[in-house]
Amino acid sequence: MGVKMVGARIKRVEDPRLLRGEGAFVDDIDLPGVLHMAVLRSPHAHARVLSVDVGPARELRGVVDAFSAADLGPDPAAIPVLFPVETSRDTPQYALARDAVRYVGEGVAVVVAESRHVAEDALELIEVEYEVLDAVVDSAAAIEPGAPVLHAAAPDNVGARLVYSVGDVDSAFEKADRVVKDRLDMQRYTGIPLETRGVAATRDAVTGELTIWASNQWPHILRGIVAGILGMPERSVRVITPDVGGGFGTKAEVYPEDVLVPLAASRLDRPVKWIEDRNEHFLTLVHSREQTHDLEFAFDADRRITGLRATLITDIGAYQRTLAVINSSLAGTSIAGVYDIPNVHVEVICAATNKSPASPYRGAGAPESAFARERLMDIAARELDIDRAELRRRNLIKPEQMPYDTGMASVEAAVVLDSGDFPAALDEALKMVDYDGFAEKQRTARADGRLIGLGICVYHQLAGTGPFEGASVRVDPSGQVTVNSGAAPQGQGTATMLAQIVADELQVDHESIKVVFGDTGRIGFGVGTFASRNAVMSGTSVLMAATKVREKAMELAAHLLEANVNDLELEEGHAQVKGSPQSRLSLTEIAAAAAPGGSRPPGMEPDLESVQYFENHAAPYSFGVHIAEVEVDRNTGLVEISRYVVVNDAGVIINPMVAEGQIAGGVAQGLGGALMEELVYDAQGQPQSASFMDYILPGSLDVPEIEVGHLHSPSPLNPLGVKGMGEGGAIGGHSAVANAVADAIEHLGVRVTKTPLKPSVVWELIQSAGQQGP
Amino acid sequence: MGVKMVGARIKRVEDPRLLRGEGAFVDDIDLPGVLHMAVLRSPHAHARVLSVDVGPARELRGVVDAFSAADLGPDPAAIPVLFPVETSRDTPQYALARDAVRYVGEGVAVVVAESRHVAEDALELIEVEYEVLDAVVDSAAAIEPGAPVLHAAAPDNVGARLVYSVGDVDSAFEKADRVVKDRLDMQRYTGIPLETRGVAATRDAVTGELTIWASNQWPHILRGIVAGILGMPERSVRVITPDVGGGFGTKAEVYPEDVLVPLAASRLDRPVKWIEDRNEHFLTLVHSREQTHDLEFAFDADRRITGLRATLITDIGAYQRTLAVINSSLAGTSIAGVYDIPNVHVEVICAATNKSPASPYRGAGAPESAFARERLMDIAARELDIDRAELRRRNLIKPEQMPYDTGMASVEAAVVLDSGDFPAALDEALKMVDYDGFAEKQRTARADGRLIGLGICVYHQLAGTGPFEGASVRVDPSGQVTVNSGAAPQGQGTATMLAQIVADELQVDHESIKVVFGDTGRIGFGVGTFASRNAVMSGTSVLMAATKVREKAMELAAHLLEANVNDLELEEGHAQVKGSPQSRLSLTEIAAAAAPGGSRPPGMEPDLESVQYFENHAAPYSFGVHIAEVEVDRNTGLVEISRYVVVNDAGVIINPMVAEGQIAGGVAQGLGGALMEELVYDAQGQPQSASFMDYILPGSLDVPEIEVGHLHSPSPLNPLGVKGMGEGGAIGGHSAVANAVADAIEHLGVRVTKTPLKPSVVWELIQSAGQQGP
Repeated sequence: MGVKMVGARIKRVEDPRLLRGEGAFVDDIDLPGVLHMAVLRSPHAHARVLSVDVGPARELRGVVDAFSAADLGPDPAAIPVLFPVETSRDTPQYALARDAVRYVGEGVAVVVAESRHVAEDALELIEVEYEVLDAVVDSAAAIEPGAPVLHAAAPDNVGARLVYSVGDVDSAFEKADRVVKDRLDMQRYTGIPLETRGVAATRDAVTGELTIWASNQWPHILRGIVAGILGMPERSVRVITPDVGGGFGTKAEVYPEDVLVPLAASRLDRPVKWIEDRNEHFLTLVHSREQTHDLEFAFDADRRITGLRATLITDIGAYQRTLAVINSSLAGTSIAGVYDIPNVHVEVICAATNKSPASPYRGAGAPESAFARERLMDIAARELDIDRAELRRRNLIKPEQMPYDTGMASVEAAVVLDSGDFPAALDEALKMVDYDGFAEKQRTARADGRLIGLGICVYHQLAGTGPFEGASVRVDPSGQVTVNSGAAPQGQGTATMLAQIVADELQVDHESIKVVFGDTGRIGFGVGTFASRNAVMSGTSVLMAATKVREKAMELAAHLLEANVNDLELEEGHAQVKGSPQSRLSLTEIAAAAAPGGSRPPGMEPDLESVQYFENHAAPYSFGVHIAEVEVDRNTGLVEISRYVVVNDAGVIINPMVAEGQIAGGVAQGLGGALMEELVYDAQGQPQSASFMDYILPGSLDVPEIEVGHLHSPSPLNPLGVKGMGEGGAIGGHSAVANAVADAIEHLGVRVTKTPLKPSVVWELIQSAGQQGP
Repeated sequence: MGVKMVGARIKRVEDPRLLRGEGAFVDDIDLPGVLHMAVLRSPHAHARVLSVDVGPARELRGVVDAFSAADLGPDPAAIPVLFPVETSRDTPQYALARDAVRYVGEGVAVVVAESRHVAEDALELIEVEYEVLDAVVDSAAAIEPGAPVLHAAAPDNVGARLVYSVGDVDSAFEKADRVVKDRLDMQRYTGIPLETRGVAATRDAVTGELTIWASNQWPHILRGIVAGILGMPERSVRVITPDVGGGFGTKAEVYPEDVLVPLAASRLDRPVKWIEDRNEHFLTLVHSREQTHDLEFAFDADRRITGLRATLITDIGAYQRTLAVINSSLAGTSIAGVYDIPNVHVEVICAATNKSPASPYRGAGAPESAFARERLMDIAARELDIDRAELRRRNLIKPEQMPYDTGMASVEAAVVLDSGDFPAALDEALKMVDYDGFAEKQRTARADGRLIGLGICVYHQLAGTGPFEGASVRVDPSGQVTVNSGAAPQGQGTATMLAQIVADELQVDHESIKVVFGDTGRIGFGVGTFASRNAVMSGTSVLMAATKVREKAMELAAHLLEANVNDLELEEGHAQVKGSPQSRLSLTEIAAAAAPGGSRPPGMEPDLESVQYFENHAAPYSFGVHIAEVEVDRNTGLVEISRYVVVNDAGVIINPMVAEGQIAGGVAQGLGGALMEELVYDAQGQPQSASFMDYILPGSLDVPEIEVGHLHSPSPLNPLGVKGMGEGGAIGGHSAVANAVADAIEHLGVRVTKTPLKPSVVWELIQSAGQQGP
């Protein structure tokens, strides 16, 4: 066997093309003659829609079509909920608002015109009569009696209610030596991809096939849902997700425009395109993270946590769409983290509010639950007067307890931690930052009037959900290797990773392998890219297919060389009799022989291709320890991150450079959430953060150098031993930074229980502490 | 098992769409922003090209590009020859003429412009300096010493020379009781599809893939050749043959424009289209049939043919392209027909002339050889004073001799007649026309001064060549059945035929099955539609794939029903325990269970799909007997066909209605060749038949009602027992009609040795006879 590519720190094969500006995103799809769609959006957070008249808009020169919900038939299909639970209530969103609007930005009507600007102008001619209703904006208020009701089927504004329970938590609290509790709040924020959403659709005159290009993370799922809503057979719809400029979970959704653009293209039998502008993006993208946690720990005398009790309120916004309860379910089932807590009771209330619908964003529930848990862990350490690292170490699951079944299962997967040494990871991270030395450093700084702090976050993440992913690997008769995957990455370097796997299996140059994603026309079934699933699911399915191709190639080579297959080896793209390189065949020669009409042994079917589906019934869990050091400017409240250390364990790493890129990106988003990002609504439900003037993202100068240490606990759940890890940075980053800020100022006598810790917030905390004395 | 669809006389599933005008031919492909290509063509039959200046054309407003051979690089690839033989000489044609032009219409330069009319105008601005050379137009003259030479590699203008020899023909002629011989000439004519050729190409911004739409019969072969000439990997080129409005073999070719349009699209990175006009069509389409036969039969005293000797000159036109010697090879190896002739020697000389390149047209060599053989058979009967039916009967291969190996093989297949009862077919046809009664009828007519005649043609045809064809059959999780085939039909009703096969296998409604053809993006390997191969090759590959799907479905149903697979039956789209219809599963339920994440038995791969390739190493041969009755107008020479009978044996017939449509179409083209169609060139090589004013096609009033009798000798070479038969009508039609005309007038003392038997030709024959007495 030649060089091993899996594990190699190599550059991404995707990048030269993207760096040369040759990427092709939805807006680059050239559909000459295309028409442009614009959406009339509700200016009200909550209103009855009494009438919509698109007639005047149709009169404008250049307008080709205009329609509202009334034109969609008497009984249109809503965007479906993929993971309904027993307590789920019907809160359906349609492609266009029917009787009522429930958030600012909700689509009410559509114009299709020769240009986008004509379409936008025509929107102003549409006459809509609204009866404005009271809006409810705060999730805790929404579930109070008497609050304005969004959906008749949920008169208490509870979209669903989830309960997870293990052991006897009441008894644990009764017997507790000490109880520590608090209410921890995470704000509404979300993934902000560089590329906004976009959809284009056209009907092929020859095949009758509707082709949809979408900036989206799950083409096969989008195909199924859109075909269903349009009443078309799946085989007549092809979804292509071309280059996608970031998604972070926000594009693993079916949005109204995903339906409206194909619908408009079908009505007109002409290509139609809609590219989201940044204002629409802030108004209508799935928001995330907004969750309130009433959390308490029961401690025994040894400071072991014997019980965890929590009530979470997830702000789900105005509608439950495809992923509905996922955030709530993952938050509820991950709240104990990697701690060995025998008694747990969590209730999660999904509260509807007049805001943009919420759905997963990188980490999907885990950043929220980790923030609550890790923040309360530090608060407890302070209250119980024990070192916070020591408190964590005492409660971590021990290596000998692995695999560790928490006894809980989210709607996606059982929470059974498959492998890992959590104490070792904590110790490694503490060593990397010289944790013991930091206490001295902090004392010195304080003596100098400086506020420095260190924050720890220990977390796990769901790392490769099923139910399956598919891949084909083909060596064509000219020897070229092509991979089709059901994945639809948005910048993760997945093509590089898959090429590395195939290169090892077929012993060909990884740069010669063409990897194709995001095209339902190229592989029968697929799931997509979200939940850190590419390495586990796409990687394993590609490995399976490449292995089948390799086995067939070797069997065919044995036939052609008149050798026993067991005597052959694959070396540098050639099958050869072991130790006899003079008797060998190139993969190209083998592939040519595999073509129909070639020379195969009896019973062997033609072609050197395999389509394989990896179906997993148990998901792996990766984990990490993040430690941030910060300095807080006493006069402005500004936080500067001075050091950032990550110890990451995601089993076998296919490409450390790609993995570290994922960690860095995640940490950037986590610290953005800890310090800056917030989607603010006023009391009437009017969005206050609808541009980059009001929604502050971390820039490159805000993100520190990130020191990464890898541990490798292979997953027993797949042949590669890999685990997903792309979301971990965002989970650890938010909490480590928040804890570090808290550590810098809580000795002043304040308590940090919410984010974002904007300068103004921190400054006010310091001021309030000042009033209580140093 | 329910109704059997194979064999059913049902309407074509293709037709409603086509009749409603919803067909989509190349010119219907909507590529907004498309540019239009026009080709500057040589006005000379033979000239040296001294210089080409496209500069002035580039200056015209609306012109985007213009180029000539000089722009194609110093060493461009020629269109390859697919079946070279040992004697083949290099007579390469390039996408554009390089040093010389060799036929009127050969492309010299190209303009690409915003519209076709601008492109055509710009052609006139291109300056070409020619040095006109002597042309050679007659194939016999071309191979005489001193004739103008077309290609340096073939100084005697012989492109290839083929010899087929069985037994000892010289000895047979030495021992002969009688020898009959003549020179028989068939004219140059060809298939004239309603839709001219057309090519469109565009480059996908996302995949970088070049998509080519072509009115063509072999998309996979076109892909391979065009990719090769453009120096692109095959996987980066997709060829789609949308609806194709007739081909008849003339579109089983790679033409210069098939290369030029993709090349232009690649140069400009914009979509480019070229649609052939009818004048270009007559000038540059492959021509066919022009062949001279010096043929002689040796008879023994019992009028058994003991030897056949022949020298054939095929006029191959100016270049040998993809199919080069196919016509010559098939003519040479089929000249003995279904007669039991022990000693045969045939030499075929492929002679280059300054005319459009020749290639197969429906029947591909067999109409030519059948004409020579069947005409000489009638001449011999007259000379030997024996009834022509009796002479044939004495010489036909007997059923007990089947399968009958002629000992010859064309470049495509060995000529081994696999099944059939030729004497029975002849007797059946004679009975249908009341052959014995015709003699009396003819005597009466002649007594009335009327000229009536009856002509017989007995022939076989190659009916399903390899090397393979591919198909996929898939039942998707919603239960919909989709077939992808490597075939690329042009009106044959192949979708209906394949749907019938699949309907029987899967017990679903044949109209619900979607059949997709002609798309290299949908199946890895394919060959195409020509040589009457669809029933045998596509049909069998589809049957193989459907059978695999059925077997998998039944295995899965057995698992789900907890039954033994042998106890199950498939009935009305449901798998059920035999005799227990209450315990059953629909194909949709089974397909849903086959999806990834479904419930399959251990080891069964997901998806209900199979891709299968049928590889045949021996081709079947179908056969037929055609009898035409005609009346010749003594005063005008006009021939009217008064009766037409066909006995056809193509083994198992999948759809008799479709088969009879094929026979009728073939007969129409055969009688067109016998009576009207001719591509005339003058002595300088200037085409004289370049429009429908000069090239007369049979209209609906010229085609008689055709009475068809079927015999069914299943082919042992495929599981369906089918044989192709689409070309037979054109083989039998030409000769039966020519023989009938001869029978009507040869008693006057003339001899018919050439076609077409236009009114003027017949009238002159009658006049010349008149000079010799009645």
